[in-house]
Amino acid sequence: MSNIRHALNVKRADDFAQWYQEVISAADMAEESGVRGCMVIKPWGYGIWERIQRLMDERIKATGHDNCYFPLLIPLANFEREAEHVEGFAKEMAVVTHHRLIADGKGGLIPDPEAKLEEPLVIRPTSETIIGDAMARWVQSWRDLPLLTNQWANVMRWEMRTRMFLRTSEFLWQEGHTAHETAEDAKEHTLRMLEVYRACAEDDLALPVMVGEKPENERFPGAVETWSIEAMMQDGKALQAGTSHYLGTNFARASGIKFQDREGGQQYCHTTSWGVSTRLIGGVIMTHGDDDGLRVPPRIAPWQVVILPMLREDDGDAALLEYCEKLRKGIAAQTALGEKIRVLLDKKPGKAAAKRWDWVRKGAPLIIEIGSRDMEAGTITRLRRDRLWNDAGKPDFASRGFDECIGNCGPVLEEIQHRLFGEARERRDANIHRGIDSVAGLTEFFADSQRYPGWVEVQWSKPTGAALDAVVKQLKALKLTIRNVPLDAAPADGACIFTGAPATERIFVARAY
Amino acid sequence: MSNIRHALNVKRADDFAQWYQEVISAADMAEESGVRGCMVIKPWGYGIWERIQRLMDERIKATGHDNCYFPLLIPLANFEREAEHVEGFAKEMAVVTHHRLIADGKGGLIPDPEAKLEEPLVIRPTSETIIGDAMARWVQSWRDLPLLTNQWANVMRWEMRTRMFLRTSEFLWQEGHTAHETAEDAKEHTLRMLEVYRACAEDDLALPVMVGEKPENERFPGAVETWSIEAMMQDGKALQAGTSHYLGTNFARASGIKFQDREGGQQYCHTTSWGVSTRLIGGVIMTHGDDDGLRVPPRIAPWQVVILPMLREDDGDAALLEYCEKLRKGIAAQTALGEKIRVLLDKKPGKAAAKRWDWVRKGAPLIIEIGSRDMEAGTITRLRRDRLWNDAGKPDFASRGFDECIGNCGPVLEEIQHRLFGEARERRDANIHRGIDSVAGLTEFFADSQRYPGWVEVQWSKPTGAALDAVVKQLKALKLTIRNVPLDAAPADGACIFTGAPATERIFVARAY
Repeated sequence: MSNIRHALNVKRADDFAQWYQEVISAADMAEESGVRGCMVIKPWGYGIWERIQRLMDERIKATGHDNCYFPLLIPLANFEREAEHVEGFAKEMAVVTHHRLIADGKGGLIPDPEAKLEEPLVIRPTSETIIGDAMARWVQSWRDLPLLTNQWANVMRWEMRTRMFLRTSEFLWQEGHTAHETAEDAKEHTLRMLEVYRACAEDDLALPVMVGEKPENERFPGAVETWSIEAMMQDGKALQAGTSHYLGTNFARASGIKFQDREGGQQYCHTTSWGVSTRLIGGVIMTHGDDDGLRVPPRIAPWQVVILPMLREDDGDAALLEYCEKLRKGIAAQTALGEKIRVLLDKKPGKAAAKRWDWVRKGAPLIIEIGSRDMEAGTITRLRRDRLWNDAGKPDFASRGFDECIGNCGPVLEEIQHRLFGEARERRDANIHRGIDSVAGLTEFFADSQRYPGWVEVQWSKPTGAALDAVVKQLKALKLTIRNVPLDAAPADGACIFTGAPATERIFVARAY
Repeated sequence: MSNIRHALNVKRADDFAQWYQEVISAADMAEESGVRGCMVIKPWGYGIWERIQRLMDERIKATGHDNCYFPLLIPLANFEREAEHVEGFAKEMAVVTHHRLIADGKGGLIPDPEAKLEEPLVIRPTSETIIGDAMARWVQSWRDLPLLTNQWANVMRWEMRTRMFLRTSEFLWQEGHTAHETAEDAKEHTLRMLEVYRACAEDDLALPVMVGEKPENERFPGAVETWSIEAMMQDGKALQAGTSHYLGTNFARASGIKFQDREGGQQYCHTTSWGVSTRLIGGVIMTHGDDDGLRVPPRIAPWQVVILPMLREDDGDAALLEYCEKLRKGIAAQTALGEKIRVLLDKKPGKAAAKRWDWVRKGAPLIIEIGSRDMEAGTITRLRRDRLWNDAGKPDFASRGFDECIGNCGPVLEEIQHRLFGEARERRDANIHRGIDSVAGLTEFFADSQRYPGWVEVQWSKPTGAALDAVVKQLKALKLTIRNVPLDAAPADGACIFTGAPATERIFVARAY
């Protein structure tokens, strides 16, 4: 297969980071905006986000949450209340200090010194504190609980090193915030939303994920427990794809979220928060992309089928377009994965072959090409993005009858969705290593700083405080982090590889984004 | 009908402004956030916005636009480029000057002086300038045109006097931005999007609107033409419900949006922009609300039908809930206005009567109550929100058979949608006055500063510059503004009421929000 001429200039195996950037650019998903750390999300990237949003939103609503919208700007005082939280965020926030500009007398503009805010405002890095204020107003009695809210919003964290979709100063996300009567109920809800994330990641984005609790040092600032779903990228690194936090009564105490309990006493609520962001798109790229560009799982593809007419700019074009439009209508009436198929007849000017490679790079699941000869024969030519090349190293075009094509778009799209997931899960499982029982073994395993051989599941004694700090430091020297304690891991049965004490659980250790 | 006990404490006729605030609070749509000028949009208000968003988004996509996302923060330099634009906005923008907070040593936080931005950034009041930068990168040739983009986003304008939904510092909106080859094409598109707004306002929100061009003094900063849709509120004031701007080449010159034309020369694009915002929700309240709260047009109602079981907290409840669930499923399988009916079985604790009035205040179009006696008789009791009271001044409950109810929810919802629109249009048309041919007549007409008798269509000579300023000043003294020059007005046939010169067109003069 070495004779394949791939659609990208950089191969994953040669330079994964460079390949990632090239996919984003070749698939026309996003670009630098010129504003530090902020990107412009272009139609194909934003279209994928809209699909993720819609599917996730349905899941969030189905679990009883209502969407709300809370202010972008948060008073400083809110951050001063919860000590750990501000410690975690204070270093990287955008601060609004003025509410007016004036001319500087040299043709430019400056903040008007007369319009300085008495109290600076912060652009939300996350909304626990401002939503906490609202919850304090909304909750009076145990009858008001659980209070289940969610918001879709932009947030900002002033990042020094940014990478498109994975870490940008401004990003789009959903943040759920809930208040509960008891710790048990709140903890249960934390895991319920983690399961929603798992289901959306695996069933919608075709991203196999490991579900588990983060260690103490990786907790969200102010949280009692932080849980995550972790996905393995094709370079063997881990991507935290979503988190769900049990916040105990920490934020309730800071914001005064109290309720009258069933016995008439006053108690603080137990709260949770959980979020996923545009970072998921980075995960989709690094899981499903190949040396020809992106491959979008059908469920989140803005267009699942793209029809390319081979126009000749002559009198025959009208009949060909009519034939294509008939096909488009036929496919649009079919369903795949429980929804009507999203099919585009791409009439833009340009050679069909050039347009085909554009759609290959974008990763549309099915590409159909139709020339006048196909039309005469009553056939179409189809290319599946998940199996692009035949054994001879050529694009694996298949000819199908017109009606046959309409009828099997649905089943084929479903097959592609499942194959992408299966392929990613197989690769992930093949790159999880067990049986390393010493730090020396770990060091050796991760010796090559250029290649990441995957994740290692090791046993540990769950040290805390200074002992945990020592472990984290040791791992950091190897550029490693603890990802999570997988929910479904086997029970511990050996010694902690860090302390030698009897192990209490198993953890994933990996390089991470 | 004076014996009706309405669900609100304030009547429209007594204090319209106070009534407006009470509807928002009684329908649980939004509240003050504690952050200056920013509101919290609560589930019922946000649910209406989600419906408006979905319907408008479909219309925007159907006219060929792709959604994108552009940065929240805009460099000062962008505003310095377009003189008129900055003049229009510079006075009211939130300015980010620092990217970090530090402890002030007294338990508080302050912006870190070490983290001052070299160039301050502005929270977008609108995105012409930053999207212009992107368009300059994206457009090379006439083949790239038209470029049709849209974004759903939050924006911020530092308003001194705010009113929920109508004027808030932060608000949610959609802003479309397009670039075209010729002035004709851009002007045509400006009107195409105005028509999309009209259709959405009238067909989805049931808001009758007047479509027309704004006078020179009311143009968007930097625009060549500004068009609007104007709706009449129940107090006779006008609400600008959406605007569409033809920007000429002003922004293209400022941002360098150039293209190679068909002859190989370089030209500046002609651009347009257009937006509608959460302000529309204010328009819905002030058009359809009554002394019992909001009435939501079915097309934008988050729940169109609400079923309230009259639970007794005894053994019979299970059977009653089962009966209600069967009804819910039956109704949910029906369609109204081209979509599946959105029906809620409200099982929350509380007396059915109290819950009924909550849903009346929220304005759910159809409320169904079911007690055990109804169940035994195989009937339901239904209340239409658009005709709440019978001639005796009592809630106009109607009894319907179970199957009959399922079958006619769709037709009844459609009837409610059309009745709300018809009622608003009749009221609007009855309050448009023609035939006033002098400023003295206008003064007399609007003499009572407490009541607004509607809009007046007058003839004028379309003065510009200083002459227009004089007219605006004259009107301002009467608290009046020119709303727009209606597209479908009769031709002018008299004298300008301001200048006495022969009139060239007709304009709407009104008090406005």
